[in-house]
Amino acid sequence: MQFTSEQRLDDGVIEREFTLGDIPGILWMPASASAPVPLILLGPAPLGLRKMYPRLVARAQHSAAEGFATATIELPGSGDRPRWDAAEQARAELRRVMEAGEPVSDEIVDALVLPLVDKAVPEWQAALDALLSLPEIGGPVGYSGGVISIGVRLAVVEPRISAAVLFAGSFVPRAILEEARQVAIPLHVLLQWDDEGNDRQATLDLFDAFGSREKTLHANMGGHTGVPQFAGEEAARFFTRHLS
Amino acid sequence: MQFTSEQRLDDGVIEREFTLGDIPGILWMPASASAPVPLILLGPAPLGLRKMYPRLVARAQHSAAEGFATATIELPGSGDRPRWDAAEQARAELRRVMEAGEPVSDEIVDALVLPLVDKAVPEWQAALDALLSLPEIGGPVGYSGGVISIGVRLAVVEPRISAAVLFAGSFVPRAILEEARQVAIPLHVLLQWDDEGNDRQATLDLFDAFGSREKTLHANMGGHTGVPQFAGEEAARFFTRHLS
Repeated sequence: MQFTSEQRLDDGVIEREFTLGDIPGILWMPASASAPVPLILLGPAPLGLRKMYPRLVARAQHSAAEGFATATIELPGSGDRPRWDAAEQARAELRRVMEAGEPVSDEIVDALVLPLVDKAVPEWQAALDALLSLPEIGGPVGYSGGVISIGVRLAVVEPRISAAVLFAGSFVPRAILEEARQVAIPLHVLLQWDDEGNDRQATLDLFDAFGSREKTLHANMGGHTGVPQFAGEEAARFFTRHLS
Repeated sequence: MQFTSEQRLDDGVIEREFTLGDIPGILWMPASASAPVPLILLGPAPLGLRKMYPRLVARAQHSAAEGFATATIELPGSGDRPRWDAAEQARAELRRVMEAGEPVSDEIVDALVLPLVDKAVPEWQAALDALLSLPEIGGPVGYSGGVISIGVRLAVVEPRISAAVLFAGSFVPRAILEEARQVAIPLHVLLQWDDEGNDRQATLDLFDAFGSREKTLHANMGGHTGVPQFAGEEAARFFTRHLS
């Protein structure tokens, strides 16, 4: 992990860009932390870190005010990372069927999501190794994220993650629905009820499948990016309950 | 409205029993209130006020700490109020089909719920008239309640109610599902995901039907009475946002 830049934001939060091998990432640290702090992994978005930056930094600053470090890395094939033929083909095929008004088949969803999960999850685990080796970061670790299938896989395979906020809004392969039964950590699932790009029933099925004894679904109105402020604050309180 | 008793609870909350005609009710006032306070109507449960008292007083004390008065009245046919033949028959018929493992028909649900809503809602409106005439109670008014169909009807017909917390867990007639489209106030709906006595899909359909621009569904694990403490606190914050 190589830090490539450091700046202090208005509220005193320290933003440090880094690379992990050829993967770019960002770490945000609370303004003043005397002891090692808990960490929230801010799950990625296929839009890429640069386009997502305003939303990510807002969430990082909110978390910093609660005493948490936050970090994120670029997804395979997103942002400045090299394109990736199979993923490009899967996205093109998805666009084609959606524009044609055809149903999105399980095969398309699998091709779109599963290779991404397989590639991304070990990268997030490597990032976690590097982040937890920093003296200023202790634990526990939460995951808060966008590509919900990555969050599900991480919750199953990564015992250092002790709570997760998952945002519905991407396709979920059947294999991930099955993996969800093995998830045991506390979950807070956000669903935008009228999200035009989201399969509501798939999210309800996924929520039902999670094996966790504590799982909460918060459904709100508004489109994909229209999560109300109070819902963001409730998600933050979930982390405060579980990571503080 | 006749007050029949008054006592000060441990935390200073004033509990006053009253009758409104032949309907018994309870009003809880915050320990110290210098100005008229907002009011939360604690929706009824068919179990009767006496059996529900421990849960009701806990919610009233929590609301009092936030500066709210709370009040509740006995449902028609519940507690010490006279039995009511049609309601008794409908309950007996429900028990019969459930014990026989038969499906609960729309006719049974209608017979069970609609006459209760028709009788109870004007009583709640009369209680609201009486409560709002007390100098120590101002407004705004919230409704927090159990028989969700009563909450839906009140939200439609009673303009003095400006926000509602609705607990899923009772049968919902199709007519009420239609009325739900006219509801426009902010709503916070609690659903116990694994509530054995609750039709989860009916609650999701009802949530979808509500016409409110702000509506939130919070689903949690645990049985009918197992609402987690944090979920109760989120519902309380909803009222603080809308009634303070």
